[in-house]
Amino acid sequence: MSSRAPSQIPKITIAGAGLVGSLLACVLRRIGYAVTVFEKRADPRAQVAQAGRSINLILTSRGLHALSQVGLSQAAKDLSVAVYGREIHSKSPSGSVQYQPYGRDGECNFAISRAELNCFLIDQAEKAGAILRFNSEIEKVEVQDRKLSAGGATEPYDILIGTDGVNSAVRKAICETPSDSPIAQMDWLEADYKELLLPSTNASGLRTDALHIWPHGTHMLMALANRDGSFTLTLYLPRESQQDPLASFSGCKTESQVRELFERDFSDIPSRVPDYVSQFLNHPQGRLGTLRLSSWQSHGHTMVLGDAAHAIVPFFGQGMNCGFEDVTELINLLGKTPVGLQRWQELLPTYEKQRKPNADAIADMALENYVEMRDHVGDPAFHETKRIEAWLEDKLPLRYKSRYRLITYSLVPYRRAQEIGRLQRELLQRLTSSTPRGTMPDYSLAEQLLSEFESKGLHA
Amino acid sequence: MSSRAPSQIPKITIAGAGLVGSLLACVLRRIGYAVTVFEKRADPRAQVAQAGRSINLILTSRGLHALSQVGLSQAAKDLSVAVYGREIHSKSPSGSVQYQPYGRDGECNFAISRAELNCFLIDQAEKAGAILRFNSEIEKVEVQDRKLSAGGATEPYDILIGTDGVNSAVRKAICETPSDSPIAQMDWLEADYKELLLPSTNASGLRTDALHIWPHGTHMLMALANRDGSFTLTLYLPRESQQDPLASFSGCKTESQVRELFERDFSDIPSRVPDYVSQFLNHPQGRLGTLRLSSWQSHGHTMVLGDAAHAIVPFFGQGMNCGFEDVTELINLLGKTPVGLQRWQELLPTYEKQRKPNADAIADMALENYVEMRDHVGDPAFHETKRIEAWLEDKLPLRYKSRYRLITYSLVPYRRAQEIGRLQRELLQRLTSSTPRGTMPDYSLAEQLLSEFESKGLHA
Repeated sequence: MSSRAPSQIPKITIAGAGLVGSLLACVLRRIGYAVTVFEKRADPRAQVAQAGRSINLILTSRGLHALSQVGLSQAAKDLSVAVYGREIHSKSPSGSVQYQPYGRDGECNFAISRAELNCFLIDQAEKAGAILRFNSEIEKVEVQDRKLSAGGATEPYDILIGTDGVNSAVRKAICETPSDSPIAQMDWLEADYKELLLPSTNASGLRTDALHIWPHGTHMLMALANRDGSFTLTLYLPRESQQDPLASFSGCKTESQVRELFERDFSDIPSRVPDYVSQFLNHPQGRLGTLRLSSWQSHGHTMVLGDAAHAIVPFFGQGMNCGFEDVTELINLLGKTPVGLQRWQELLPTYEKQRKPNADAIADMALENYVEMRDHVGDPAFHETKRIEAWLEDKLPLRYKSRYRLITYSLVPYRRAQEIGRLQRELLQRLTSSTPRGTMPDYSLAEQLLSEFESKGLHA
Repeated sequence: MSSRAPSQIPKITIAGAGLVGSLLACVLRRIGYAVTVFEKRADPRAQVAQAGRSINLILTSRGLHALSQVGLSQAAKDLSVAVYGREIHSKSPSGSVQYQPYGRDGECNFAISRAELNCFLIDQAEKAGAILRFNSEIEKVEVQDRKLSAGGATEPYDILIGTDGVNSAVRKAICETPSDSPIAQMDWLEADYKELLLPSTNASGLRTDALHIWPHGTHMLMALANRDGSFTLTLYLPRESQQDPLASFSGCKTESQVRELFERDFSDIPSRVPDYVSQFLNHPQGRLGTLRLSSWQSHGHTMVLGDAAHAIVPFFGQGMNCGFEDVTELINLLGKTPVGLQRWQELLPTYEKQRKPNADAIADMALENYVEMRDHVGDPAFHETKRIEAWLEDKLPLRYKSRYRLITYSLVPYRRAQEIGRLQRELLQRLTSSTPRGTMPDYSLAEQLLSEFESKGLHA
């Protein structure tokens, strides 16, 4: 290892061929780096395709932008279902349904199956010339010696990037490196989730171009269409609840409890998902959490990216998008031509410094959105604020773009979008409080408020 | 007029409710300016819709970006036909047809009817609150006194922007202002054009998602699908020709000459356009030219934008896109909040200084593309270069993006794209000359050439 010259173009080792790892392999290969990817699982392309039917990811501007750098955004869109807004369902099946568009001017989210996108990206990484080693679990990383043990063999590495998800082995090794020892903190959400499948034959009347939400304060159900017309339902329940034990995983364990919960809170589901009780009782219960890591890299040659560095809750649909944007940001810094080892070692700490505030910001906003989706989307005051916001975006589109749109349909850094969002909330509060419910705001007042908040930094 | 305070937010007067004028009115209104537009023609929305059937414009990234700032890009796309590449036809109807994709990863051009888009934008300008005065020809502009005479009345103005096209009255007034007297130079193309209509009933076998070209060196025919499945043909012929008099407007004036020309050079047309002879003889003959104006503004309060400042030939499909980008650039400088008269007067000369090199660059490139389309698209060496370029874009997409794509599918300034294009031509020449015809280039050589040209400024 002492023979590594600082100007030598490093070989890149990636741990984890998930979404971020396989995209990163593609991008680095297309720049001209030699890339090897270790993946502990078997090649997912050999699995039965059925696993790929469930749509559970949302691709938006940041993810699409990263894909477009290697010419893959259209192919990913072709694998997706376009989703234009939220449809809010009330408790009773005969109750009102309310549609809230996400964006304007054709803006939409692309719902895509994690498994299908992963297989596609692995294909592309291989096509680009990356070496993929499946069934190769990382057994040990000796960060200071730059040695990696996987699949029974120990090899030196130049640069190691861990894209090995929330249980990252690379992160563990970084955290155990004596000279650095960054701290990893995992905050689990009080709610877990279970997925159920609503078959296409029972989906009539459920629009496929919307995310469906049944919001109930402490818990909620969501539904997103798959490409075959079926829907994947995701039920979020607290693990425990004193206040409403039935609406919790610990209080909903028997057939009759499951039946009682659905008949009470999601009464339009039983007729659409005849076997919902057995699905609920048999499907795995997933956890959700926010990972905060005090440093993402060690010695400038070993680092983590994506969920391995900053797992977030899924309620802003930004987990994958944030991970893909990590790739973009890293490449923006390193440049689009291969650079030597020393330059990498200089730039990895810079990358971390620039990127971390943005990862922290989206982690916070995703948690906020959990509360919003679970709770506020069914609230009349929330709707009134959204109505005023839509009016502003319509009348003064160059001066006002909602935080949701900044996150989802722009490349404005997350941190900046968060700051703008705070100003927007204050502005909207003032405009809403001066506007009688159901009437249009006063144009001059809106302009005056915009000018005031622009001077505080409202513009992206 | 002496009462104008420097900090006063100016009222904006626009001359010409064409594409650029009506978009500019929309944008300025949506920022909050008071806007009045004078248009010499009657309201085009009152005309018979038939005029709107002929598709003769191409909307690409720059135009769409400008429209998206006021939320109108999706609506414009909805009025268009997506065009993904060129289809090159040979002289004989049984001859080969060759397809050249324009872009990658879903990139495409949006072909749209000038008349339909104009009516749509006029609607939007009105909806935004701009005042539109039709049947109001500009009779006189007294630049130094800031007075405008139109529709029989004379009024003072704060800021006057002429978007009144290639025969701009505002430009004439600026050119006659004693203190400035910029020089306007019009270079007419040696070729004029005529449009013919190919009815949808005869269009079978002509793909609608391509621009069709019959290139013949000194002259050419182009066809673009309309939304109803018919095609608009545009025939470009030199006004005179010594070498091939039949293929010129002066040498093709009788029924038998028209028949002879089409049977000789465009032999698949007569069966598809049964009345092509009478169409040719009766349709107007249009001129094409490049306008170069030494200064676009006078006193910081009177200026021209779009074709009125820099009309170009249509062979890069950038006339409207460049005009729309003028609007974006102007707003980028002025800001998205209304600013006072003095700020406008300071910024108009800055705008001109920044924008002019880009307008000059696209004017030159549009002329180059005329030669390419007329001539090279049928040339095997041209195809070989395009093949090598496609290979580069596929293998190293982060490091190579063709000039066509930079112009059409990015927002890289025209001037910069032109410079990059020069480097690309040199690089491609070297790579092509080292690659035996029909074989794949050597990857290491490609990388080495890219590194060499990147150090000269190849990256956008």
